[in-house]
Amino acid sequence: MASTLNGFPVTLDDVTSARDRILRHLHYTPVLTSSTFDSKYGRKFYFKAENFQKTGSFKSRGALNAVTKLVEEKQERVVGVTTHSSGNHGQALAWAAQHCGLPCNVIVPRNTPTVKIDAIKGYGADVTLCEPNPTSRAETCAAICSEKNYVYIPSADHYDVMAGQGTIALEFLEQVPMLDAILVAASAGGMVSGIACAAKQLKPEIKIFVVEPFGKDLERCLREGKRLWPEPPQYVDTIAEGIRIQQLGKLAFPIVLSLAEKEVFTTTNAQIVEGMRFAFERMKVVIEGASGAVIAAAMSKRLRRMDGRLRHVGVILCGGNVDIDHIPWLPTREA
Amino acid sequence: MASTLNGFPVTLDDVTSARDRILRHLHYTPVLTSSTFDSKYGRKFYFKAENFQKTGSFKSRGALNAVTKLVEEKQERVVGVTTHSSGNHGQALAWAAQHCGLPCNVIVPRNTPTVKIDAIKGYGADVTLCEPNPTSRAETCAAICSEKNYVYIPSADHYDVMAGQGTIALEFLEQVPMLDAILVAASAGGMVSGIACAAKQLKPEIKIFVVEPFGKDLERCLREGKRLWPEPPQYVDTIAEGIRIQQLGKLAFPIVLSLAEKEVFTTTNAQIVEGMRFAFERMKVVIEGASGAVIAAAMSKRLRRMDGRLRHVGVILCGGNVDIDHIPWLPTREA
Repeated sequence: MASTLNGFPVTLDDVTSARDRILRHLHYTPVLTSSTFDSKYGRKFYFKAENFQKTGSFKSRGALNAVTKLVEEKQERVVGVTTHSSGNHGQALAWAAQHCGLPCNVIVPRNTPTVKIDAIKGYGADVTLCEPNPTSRAETCAAICSEKNYVYIPSADHYDVMAGQGTIALEFLEQVPMLDAILVAASAGGMVSGIACAAKQLKPEIKIFVVEPFGKDLERCLREGKRLWPEPPQYVDTIAEGIRIQQLGKLAFPIVLSLAEKEVFTTTNAQIVEGMRFAFERMKVVIEGASGAVIAAAMSKRLRRMDGRLRHVGVILCGGNVDIDHIPWLPTREA
Repeated sequence: MASTLNGFPVTLDDVTSARDRILRHLHYTPVLTSSTFDSKYGRKFYFKAENFQKTGSFKSRGALNAVTKLVEEKQERVVGVTTHSSGNHGQALAWAAQHCGLPCNVIVPRNTPTVKIDAIKGYGADVTLCEPNPTSRAETCAAICSEKNYVYIPSADHYDVMAGQGTIALEFLEQVPMLDAILVAASAGGMVSGIACAAKQLKPEIKIFVVEPFGKDLERCLREGKRLWPEPPQYVDTIAEGIRIQQLGKLAFPIVLSLAEKEVFTTTNAQIVEGMRFAFERMKVVIEGASGAVIAAAMSKRLRRMDGRLRHVGVILCGGNVDIDHIPWLPTREA
């Protein structure tokens, strides 16, 4: 452990409790392999297919754990939950709230595609529109919290959410105990934190590598041990809209700093599309940009140059919520 | 058993022997489920993901069983294998031959997309072009057989191929023992025959329903107990090019007549596309038209009107080899 953390903020007990809470309502997702990929890139790769998870992404794990635990602890004092999200976490929270019989209000930016708004409404949540920037999202969400007395469940920077995402690592190490490393995409860092806490407690020698879109500049932050990002929080310009938040969360940053490797895999749009194409064409799975970024990291020269003793490499396919009428390598049908 | 068959032409012993021969070289494919699909269509559906199989379709099962058994029986007297195929069986036979260290020559119609020809060559096979009709395919293949002394391995109408495809049913009934019915697409009928023989021996009360493209007219043939198709063999006009052969094979027809239900699910192009869209959008899997046809059958009014005691319904997603630059609901990029 690096000195920035005093113990694991998310303990193995937190993660196994999360699993007990959520497992029977979620998919135990399969691990896919591709001998073509392995022989081309010179290691054994294992693809954890969270794109098959309920609501199409890993987010349902953390959302369901947070909402269920909240209800366990506060019972009828909880009158509803809210969050701001343009995508996967909004769907996941709406689904989790519906599952627990709680009202839910999701704040979404005005430019969110109708298909995503409809998915959130489909799980019974109310939708409130806001301006498409992080500041407006946070302010609108705070207003709903105070007006309706709803509890805010952030998409990432919350230990119960992290504990839920950590269940990915429990399953993955059960399925592939010999994993030497896990590649995982970071947006605000909830999934990386949960996976890193769980995996490092189960297998201290495992390496956790973060994958980011170009412009996030996480490696410099990790090497200097400081949050170097501009305020207010910004989006980076990437086709992987699930990981466009530039800053890691305040709770996530020290965890990632302590537990993840300093070498961060930075991916361009062209590389992300190449990763997505491989998944569609050869693995026969539909994935979104964030998952394409992780495959791109697995394909990268940077990984190829790393220690050959990293033999068994896990790749988290975190979600599959791509708009199938807007596949990035194909033109869109005219309206 | 109907009177057309004297016992099962493919025995359970043939299928378990096939499994012993091929299992360790193939994927034991997962079964996917969708609670959205189940609640919309009112039964429990189980999707056997053969699109994740080696070479992207179930065809590798039958091809590997046939080639491996041939080599076991004839040993060094086998100098090579050949077939005619525009798609999945060509790739599967090339892969199986490479696996057994045998030369392979695949006859493909001139209009076959380059990507498919490259895939066949990628498994080390020679490719010979022919005219795009069943007659030219058969004649060119016969010429290669006599010229090179290669053994012809048909895509479907061969008991060892059927026994290999039958291993799908062994796995599926292990994974979901309570299956009441299996929906499976037919082209020349090798997969239906193998699955029907295996499943009916393991669980005589299970129902096997055939799915076909519009124009195949199988139901009329089954109800009259006769091959009513025109000669020479023709293609039907369907976007599911994997199942465009109109006639069932001579060995397959009596098996299907005896073991499959008389109600055949006929699917139009629009229904096939709807099935494919559901798989891409909600199940996050890439499937080809033949698999889309089977999902369309599962969605159909005809199935909805059937006996509610058909509670647990298996759906064979037979392959995923769609050209990802030509997704049927999107325009194609200009060359």
